[in-house]
Amino acid sequence: MADKDNVVSVGDLLAPYAERVEVDLRRWLVEPGTPETLSEAMSYCVLGGGKRLRPALVWMSAESVAGGPACAEQAAARAAVAVELVHCYSLVHDDLPSMDDDVLRRGRPTAHVKFGEAMAVLAGDALLTRAFGILGEAPTRLEGAASLAAQLVAELARAAGAVGMVAGQVADMDLCDVPPGSRGLRYIHVRKTAALIRAAARMGALCGGASGPRLQAVSDWAESLGLAFQLVDDLLDATGSAEQLGKTPGKDAQAGKQTAVAELGIGRAREATERLSRQAVEALSPLGESAGPLRELTDLLVRRLR
Amino acid sequence: MADKDNVVSVGDLLAPYAERVEVDLRRWLVEPGTPETLSEAMSYCVLGGGKRLRPALVWMSAESVAGGPACAEQAAARAAVAVELVHCYSLVHDDLPSMDDDVLRRGRPTAHVKFGEAMAVLAGDALLTRAFGILGEAPTRLEGAASLAAQLVAELARAAGAVGMVAGQVADMDLCDVPPGSRGLRYIHVRKTAALIRAAARMGALCGGASGPRLQAVSDWAESLGLAFQLVDDLLDATGSAEQLGKTPGKDAQAGKQTAVAELGIGRAREATERLSRQAVEALSPLGESAGPLRELTDLLVRRLR
Repeated sequence: MADKDNVVSVGDLLAPYAERVEVDLRRWLVEPGTPETLSEAMSYCVLGGGKRLRPALVWMSAESVAGGPACAEQAAARAAVAVELVHCYSLVHDDLPSMDDDVLRRGRPTAHVKFGEAMAVLAGDALLTRAFGILGEAPTRLEGAASLAAQLVAELARAAGAVGMVAGQVADMDLCDVPPGSRGLRYIHVRKTAALIRAAARMGALCGGASGPRLQAVSDWAESLGLAFQLVDDLLDATGSAEQLGKTPGKDAQAGKQTAVAELGIGRAREATERLSRQAVEALSPLGESAGPLRELTDLLVRRLR
Repeated sequence: MADKDNVVSVGDLLAPYAERVEVDLRRWLVEPGTPETLSEAMSYCVLGGGKRLRPALVWMSAESVAGGPACAEQAAARAAVAVELVHCYSLVHDDLPSMDDDVLRRGRPTAHVKFGEAMAVLAGDALLTRAFGILGEAPTRLEGAASLAAQLVAELARAAGAVGMVAGQVADMDLCDVPPGSRGLRYIHVRKTAALIRAAARMGALCGGASGPRLQAVSDWAESLGLAFQLVDDLLDATGSAEQLGKTPGKDAQAGKQTAVAELGIGRAREATERLSRQAVEALSPLGESAGPLRELTDLLVRRLR
């Protein structure tokens, strides 16, 4: 096993994709004619850094299934931006006073603290809408490009909507019944976190031309990865500092929210993370060698805990 | 000129389309697996009646340009549902305490009064997302269907987003600079009301196979119609009762919001409405006889004031 100091970090692995999506975000985020205050708020919510995990998942999944159609790169670039906009919108709305009432995000004031609550709601609405606009505006001259664009819209909507992220937040806010104990926690994590991570990977795989068992492999990998990712986040939240996290540590636990650490304890939460990461890697077997970077990402993600 | 009592009303003209969209809304609104409380809130926001003007515009525009592709009817049905969901989401978010803080809508408590603020934000998010999902999920077996679906997504996103409805609400909330006087009012109305009405008509025309001058004709008609519609709304708000309106009359004026009546006075607002409706009808000339129902709708809409 390589020395811990010599292995690349998650950030290193994601960096080239993060650079690419940063350029594309700046190109596509703001439509000409957007009121300046609104575009300022949207940019603040999106361009404030972050690892850009979800866009990287689009690109890495597309590359791992290989052999995509000619439209793949253009479509993947749009899909990467779209998933990031949906992620950012969800943070803005989740942070609202009527929701989690958070004041700090990525080390900066949350959108409603900075711009007021009305603008935060509206900027979130605009980001969600723009995500779909970017997919719908894809050039459709190439054979298959239009059909791919429609599929990407459907994938993203399913993950973001009433059976995905919105359902997860409804459950997390205790606004619907969920099963008791760790099953309830899984219900929330599958929808609130894993759904968009899974959609990012699936959208990438679709751009790469995957279908059938290869699409399913990417899908299963990403769902386990997403669940592991949430556990890592909960574990770091329970043990990390505000500086490391860019948000108030222990906030979720203090708010009486269900967290993996509160439900399982640190030891069992770590075990569950390891188990999910093994399941994630196993799911990749139909893809063979080309899935190497996806395995590496899975491993590095869990290694943050060690 | 026909006797006033013998002419059909706007409601009569829209009724067959309203019936059709009611069925399609019930079919597509709720994805299986949606938490029950969320699906209840979404249904409350959508199935509470309303004239279904925007879905009717999709259908009527599609019929007026005629000669569409084989996928037209399926696509128009989805487009009709999607524009109505976007309309309903915008009402829910506009009514929020941090926005217009309205407690009554279509004669019933607004969503946040009925379900709480968090659920209202989330139900709105889910409705907006579902609108795009319904377009993206359209069957794409038929030639041209995928390309049409992508176009519809792009049209709807443009109208709903940062250069359309969100911009209109930002301006209406006084969160950005707008030109002074009636130009500022027009800036708001073009975005907040006319953009979605125009998109509904354009989406219908696209489903009907229109492009070039015929698409432009429908587009220009609908923008003028949308502006006239907003003026009629303001005039009825200034002169009508809560019973007629289903919302608190005079609310906008009391809130210090720019309204056409406050800005222009009743007489000049009526004149502007007549002028816009003439412009709307003139825009239809490239379509010839087949645009009869669009002319009739324009006429009936303004006649509500007489």
